[in-house]
Amino acid sequence: MKDVHAMAPAQGNLRLRSVGLSGIRKPLVVQRAERQNVLAVTFRVGVDLPSDRKGSDLSRNAEILAEIVDTTVTRPVDSLESACSSIVRELLVRHPYAREAAVEASAEYFLQKGVSEERRSFEDYTLIAEARATRGPGGEVELGRAVGAEAVGMTACPCAMETCRAELVREFPELAASKFESLPMITHNQRNRTRLVFELEDGGDVEVDDVIDTIEASASSPTYAILKRGDEGAVVLRAHRRPKFVEDVLRDLLASLPARFPQLSDRTGVRATTVSEESIHKYNVEASHRVSLGELRQGLET
Amino acid sequence: MKDVHAMAPAQGNLRLRSVGLSGIRKPLVVQRAERQNVLAVTFRVGVDLPSDRKGSDLSRNAEILAEIVDTTVTRPVDSLESACSSIVRELLVRHPYAREAAVEASAEYFLQKGVSEERRSFEDYTLIAEARATRGPGGEVELGRAVGAEAVGMTACPCAMETCRAELVREFPELAASKFESLPMITHNQRNRTRLVFELEDGGDVEVDDVIDTIEASASSPTYAILKRGDEGAVVLRAHRRPKFVEDVLRDLLASLPARFPQLSDRTGVRATTVSEESIHKYNVEASHRVSLGELRQGLET
Amino acid sequence: MKDVHAMAPAQGNLRLRSVGLSGIRKPLVVQRAERQNVLAVTFRVGVDLPSDRKGSDLSRNAEILAEIVDTTVTRPVDSLESACSSIVRELLVRHPYAREAAVEASAEYFLQKGVSEERRSFEDYTLIAEARATRGPGGEVELGRAVGAEAVGMTACPCAMETCRAELVREFPELAASKFESLPMITHNQRNRTRLVFELEDGGDVEVDDVIDTIEASASSPTYAILKRGDEGAVVLRAHRRPKFVEDVLRDLLASLPARFPQLSDRTGVRATTVSEESIHKYNVEASHRVSLGELRQGLET
Amino acid sequence: MKDVHAMAPAQGNLRLRSVGLSGIRKPLVVQRAERQNVLAVTFRVGVDLPSDRKGSDLSRNAEILAEIVDTTVTRPVDSLESACSSIVRELLVRHPYAREAAVEASAEYFLQKGVSEERRSFEDYTLIAEARATRGPGGEVELGRAVGAEAVGMTACPCAMETCRAELVREFPELAASKFESLPMITHNQRNRTRLVFELEDGGDVEVDDVIDTIEASASSPTYAILKRGDEGAVVLRAHRRPKFVEDVLRDLLASLPARFPQLSDRTGVRATTVSEESIHKYNVEASHRVSLGELRQGLET
Repeated sequence: MKDVHAMAPAQGNLRLRSVGLSGIRKPLVVQRAERQNVLAVTFRVGVDLPSDRKGSDLSRNAEILAEIVDTTVTRPVDSLESACSSIVRELLVRHPYAREAAVEASAEYFLQKGVSEERRSFEDYTLIAEARATRGPGGEVELGRAVGAEAVGMTACPCAMETCRAELVREFPELAASKFESLPMITHNQRNRTRLVFELEDGGDVEVDDVIDTIEASASSPTYAILKRGDEGAVVLRAHRRPKFVEDVLRDLLASLPARFPQLSDRTGVRATTVSEESIHKYNVEASHRVSLGELRQGLET
Repeated sequence: MKDVHAMAPAQGNLRLRSVGLSGIRKPLVVQRAERQNVLAVTFRVGVDLPSDRKGSDLSRNAEILAEIVDTTVTRPVDSLESACSSIVRELLVRHPYAREAAVEASAEYFLQKGVSEERRSFEDYTLIAEARATRGPGGEVELGRAVGAEAVGMTACPCAMETCRAELVREFPELAASKFESLPMITHNQRNRTRLVFELEDGGDVEVDDVIDTIEASASSPTYAILKRGDEGAVVLRAHRRPKFVEDVLRDLLASLPARFPQLSDRTGVRATTVSEESIHKYNVEASHRVSLGELRQGLET
Repeated sequence: MKDVHAMAPAQGNLRLRSVGLSGIRKPLVVQRAERQNVLAVTFRVGVDLPSDRKGSDLSRNAEILAEIVDTTVTRPVDSLESACSSIVRELLVRHPYAREAAVEASAEYFLQKGVSEERRSFEDYTLIAEARATRGPGGEVELGRAVGAEAVGMTACPCAMETCRAELVREFPELAASKFESLPMITHNQRNRTRLVFELEDGGDVEVDDVIDTIEASASSPTYAILKRGDEGAVVLRAHRRPKFVEDVLRDLLASLPARFPQLSDRTGVRATTVSEESIHKYNVEASHRVSLGELRQGLET
Repeated sequence: MKDVHAMAPAQGNLRLRSVGLSGIRKPLVVQRAERQNVLAVTFRVGVDLPSDRKGSDLSRNAEILAEIVDTTVTRPVDSLESACSSIVRELLVRHPYAREAAVEASAEYFLQKGVSEERRSFEDYTLIAEARATRGPGGEVELGRAVGAEAVGMTACPCAMETCRAELVREFPELAASKFESLPMITHNQRNRTRLVFELEDGGDVEVDDVIDTIEASASSPTYAILKRGDEGAVVLRAHRRPKFVEDVLRDLLASLPARFPQLSDRTGVRATTVSEESIHKYNVEASHRVSLGELRQGLET
């Protein structure tokens, strides 16, 4: 039988940056201190392809995923990102013609949280992990890793709050009194989705639960599945006492990273995006930034 | 060449309710009084299949769409629903073995609206049209039609508003004064999507712009693309002066129909669903109802 | 604090069919003979609302889900459908004003399958469960349940195969020889998604793995994550030796049910839909049917 | 009224790369030689935000879109990309504090095509346009533009074809004869989505219809809405006579660009991705590349 993949391509001299699988779903079992988490992960995996080779041996990618991911059902791994690192290394082993391999993974993740201890229930988040391996001229492999999460919270608009305050003071002049200065006024509020990803240096490590806590702390308020009447009021009040633009969410998030993640080196990359699904518009507003942790540390000091 | 579709199926005696195309996209040009609207429509079309026939002649469905929809680029039609009625009739003509034919269509639709005259810009909505044709024993064709729309607005929660009022009165006792009774208090607000579809009787007709206006009037407030600072305050105030549960949106919508659509007969069917993308939760709340216009008229009278 | 939900609505006399939550995600642990499955489930839950009540107590729905679903992490349940039955019963308990309650659930589900024993890996499917409870005049509760699944396979078109055979026989007249009659010829093939749901009678029960096997057997061939070169050929050959229209997939599926599910009563309802994502078109073709198992049994006998 | 946006942010020293709107939908009318096309466009627009400013004046973005896009209903523009260039320039004018502005736009696009002249009907494609403006130290504005498209076609796998040939030759030894060498054999085939985007240099220009033709020529075959029996055979035959991996689609596409687009400069960037929705797997395979047109020209010469 002809090895069609190993044949020369019709079009010469074109190395391709990436050939692989996408949208492949797999269950991954992660062992945590207190419990096992079963993640349903979507993977994209690929390697580059030299110019003298017609095709990439794609069934090897599916085999690698079966060997590293499927087996976690009986032998759990530490984390989604450690699985990604194993996968990307193995991609270079099984594709000897490749110089680069990359994995992107995202998975839904459940954590028990609550507005109070007796209201705890599972809230859903998204985990993100990426790994990239490069084969050097001497065969040595260099590994790049990224880890992050996305969480949904809420934002309350600080600008509309001041506009409404001015309007309501006109209608209720007593509200101009200084004692009402701290009275939170009506404004538009909405769902906010914020994503934070760290591009880690060798040896760098983050706990995804900390990433999620950090994101939730940057919104006007986290949101919860179970809110009895009083809790609902508490969440609304909290959000209106911390009104935030997406710009504020993003800056507060970034500014909190040096204190939250002291263990990460200055060369750690940070990518962050926040999207508010505006209640007063049919479209979203969003803010995004990319910076190194070192720049962030310096910038905040000055 | 064998006519494979006309062969007997391997599995005998099974008439199938529906065989057809879905997810087919087409541009449809509608001539309105003031301008032409070009809709990008997603169609699902199908007919039933008798038990003695292996397959449905599906290429005829694509031909019918080309003949009735593609040609509107040079010869616009009156409405999406009139195109659906033509399609469903033609389906029965070209599938002589069929007793029933059905079409479902949805399309994005733009209307110029604004919080004020000088802030008008295009807002996006969804149009819905359905048609169903049944061939009677004597060959006569009976036609059923449905027409509707979906619009995005906003809701402000009346319950959290009262909880927050009670909480803020504890903190600011002056607010207990009766003059502050009408002061709108903070609450959670969010995007709301509401869909209203009429199942029309013979001769019944509705103008989709009226359906959209009716839906928008049922929310706490419509939403707009362009809102300068003062406008934003006005929309927020309006929404907080008309706080609504999804239950209120749905009831107000339904209750407004008799006055809004006096031309429709009692036997007109009404389907309505409203979904609020809760800002304080990661999930949605929704309410839905199905009723005849006659029941609605009677119910509101009693 | 006012109980806003219990207040009378502004619009009188409108009982609403359904008010509830949608898009709420929860992990559910199911105990199977050989292993635990952790499902990430999307729930829609709701109850009707009497005309004299402004709002439904929605936080109770989130509490019920936390109590019945979240707790499966430590106390697994038998199945997604048993969880749905518990939820729908509890909805009627906690919403004493409601006469009807409904739950819809869907979840991704992984099963180890392979083209051969040594190629087994996780394949992904969708589970579907629904439950509906009605409170009778004497307070007795009647329960309706539906269970099903969706699986992706492939179809190869029998019509294009004959067209291509005729064309190739013109080009290669030797192929007209009777010995080549069984030579599978080229045709278009594509992904097919088929969904089968049983509306169960009291006491009726199906195993979802059987539902998935039944669906996979109705396609031209199941599909697999790991296919080495020879396996790929085997799958392609199998599909081309069983060419099927969506009509054939649906009829073969329905016709297989009496033998596959002898334990189900005649009054069991069957809903089935199959969609082929045509490789030669940008749109899909689909076929659907709704029938009782009794009608199916009778029809196949005649 | 306080200008909240212009206030200093709570967190100092953080310039943000991008703040803006996303998911905003607008109708855009493009005047072509033979007809007007009405596109329903999704825009993302944004500018950077200096460290001393709390918020970006987002309503200006919606106003710019209304002024440049909404008005095309009465005064059509040349192309989606020319609209994007106007928008991005205006973003810098209305956000005097910004140094960079960016626009991303995508729109569905219909073209009449057919397997033959009498089978023409509308096929749907996706248009892509991007623009980026940078304000230099002297106030001069530098503009970057990208234009592209996505088209759906089909691929037939060359590897499974050879595996099946070998298998069928075992079963039908006569097929080993040299006259059958060119007999196309069965294989898996499927939908393929391919995207090609040019990052244009100053003055560079491409016609999107040419981009679409180029993409369609790179697949095993284009696909069509209307295919009568004989046409279906012709498309299947064409695809099986040009079997292609995603790697082949991508290389053939890239290799065709120098001849197809001689007017574009060497420094024009090229981004291309192709995804096959494998009929034998539940996941996709994909290949992607990024290169300059100059590198491509040189590489193909050597």
